[in-house]
Amino acid sequence: MRKLQPISTTRTVRSYRMGEFRDVQDTVVTEFPVTIYLNDEEFATVVCTPEYIEDMVVGFLSSEGVLRSYGDIRNVTVDPAQGFVYVETDKLVTLNTRLYNKRYITSCCGKSRQSFYFFNDARTVKTMKERRVSLSVENCFRLMSEMQAQAALFQETGGVHNASLCDQNGILLSRTDIGRHNALDKIYGHCLKNGISVDDKVIVFSGRISSEILLKVAKIGCEVVLSKSAPTQLALEMAEELGITAVGFIRNDTLNVYTHPERIQNSRS
Amino acid sequence: MRKLQPISTTRTVRSYRMGEFRDVQDTVVTEFPVTIYLNDEEFATVVCTPEYIEDMVVGFLSSEGVLRSYGDIRNVTVDPAQGFVYVETDKLVTLNTRLYNKRYITSCCGKSRQSFYFFNDARTVKTMKERRVSLSVENCFRLMSEMQAQAALFQETGGVHNASLCDQNGILLSRTDIGRHNALDKIYGHCLKNGISVDDKVIVFSGRISSEILLKVAKIGCEVVLSKSAPTQLALEMAEELGITAVGFIRNDTLNVYTHPERIQNSRS
Repeated sequence: MRKLQPISTTRTVRSYRMGEFRDVQDTVVTEFPVTIYLNDEEFATVVCTPEYIEDMVVGFLSSEGVLRSYGDIRNVTVDPAQGFVYVETDKLVTLNTRLYNKRYITSCCGKSRQSFYFFNDARTVKTMKERRVSLSVENCFRLMSEMQAQAALFQETGGVHNASLCDQNGILLSRTDIGRHNALDKIYGHCLKNGISVDDKVIVFSGRISSEILLKVAKIGCEVVLSKSAPTQLALEMAEELGITAVGFIRNDTLNVYTHPERIQNSRS
Repeated sequence: MRKLQPISTTRTVRSYRMGEFRDVQDTVVTEFPVTIYLNDEEFATVVCTPEYIEDMVVGFLSSEGVLRSYGDIRNVTVDPAQGFVYVETDKLVTLNTRLYNKRYITSCCGKSRQSFYFFNDARTVKTMKERRVSLSVENCFRLMSEMQAQAALFQETGGVHNASLCDQNGILLSRTDIGRHNALDKIYGHCLKNGISVDDKVIVFSGRISSEILLKVAKIGCEVVLSKSAPTQLALEMAEELGITAVGFIRNDTLNVYTHPERIQNSRS
């Protein structure tokens, strides 16, 4: 039987430390989409760290009230290559099978995994073919510290995510939300409503660059995302493919450029 | 027109500092469920910080591909008391209306908001009527530091959440995941599979106590949740109602007990 993907991967990262860019080996965490089939019917897709998958699925279905007890499960089979879990039960609580997102399964390519696991995502993301944004590392540090200075609610309560829309000169718009993607939706909605072009803009985000956040940036149509935190491997694969520059771990005077580094310049060299 | 809830609230918290418990006023962030109606049909419920709601809904529907352009919207009405947003459009992209969770609207009570916004949640949570767990503040500090010591992947990559199932004496089980609730589902599944009772157990969690996390703790059936981070107001309302002790901001030798403080003792007094 094939094994699950490793829970983290090593990759080459352009790391900026003490005024210089150097290629270093860095560990990036895996995001693994798991699609649950209940009695052969597609039920839900959960993105997770690839370990204890069977426990996760049992816990998820039980806490959702779909399974009433562990004894009701006839069989659980994990297909690690596809990320499919097949659960068979005689006592399905159909009342509680919520309407979940259906996964988008490509039928046309030989890849065992595809980057986009939902149909809508594959349809609504924009690929950044041009290079309209160029930032110096100093720009990155300044934009991050400006965003953090504006994040008053976070400092007060420690419970929210912050996102800003910026250009080279500074922050144009900042939004705060307890939900990771809501702050980005608020920025996107504002731009749509007021006809603000995002062509030469950058997203600065306080949280981790997950696949969900990367997809949101791609849907808004920004070329660059700056984060204080870590990216996931799946988000970086998507960024690679969509032409987006992902910069993470912007802290003090260090940062990592993970993808499409051509948009980030060392101002000192 | 009525206004939205404030984005944060002040509440009295039992705060432990320098060896003593004192009641202090603390700020807690709001979690606000917003249900979106598309042409009068319920579409999705998003939990958010209550500001820029209209922008968020427009951004969300656009990034989901449900709306193709801002001009396609005929009207947006926000009902702040109910947390309902009505979007009218002539050009609904029905292909892309995913199947979202339906909100559970109580019809029986006069409250303008209800604590449980999904039907399944109201059905599957357990109320903690007994008091089988008693922890000293020293227990809380030790369990938190043990959980953090085990969280190797987090230290390596900065990208995951950690959860542990504990009793007074220490950690029984630790799980790590990039998804906030997956780590808890993995613990729940393990307990179900192996017939492990959670009656006298405690959940220790690295991230914020959101309503989703609190519900998961209630579904697993634990009386106490310990967190390094902040809770939300909605999570605390649920904890109050369900009899769960929520302890947050466990850092160095300080912590806050937010609800049902009778389970946490000051070991020094």
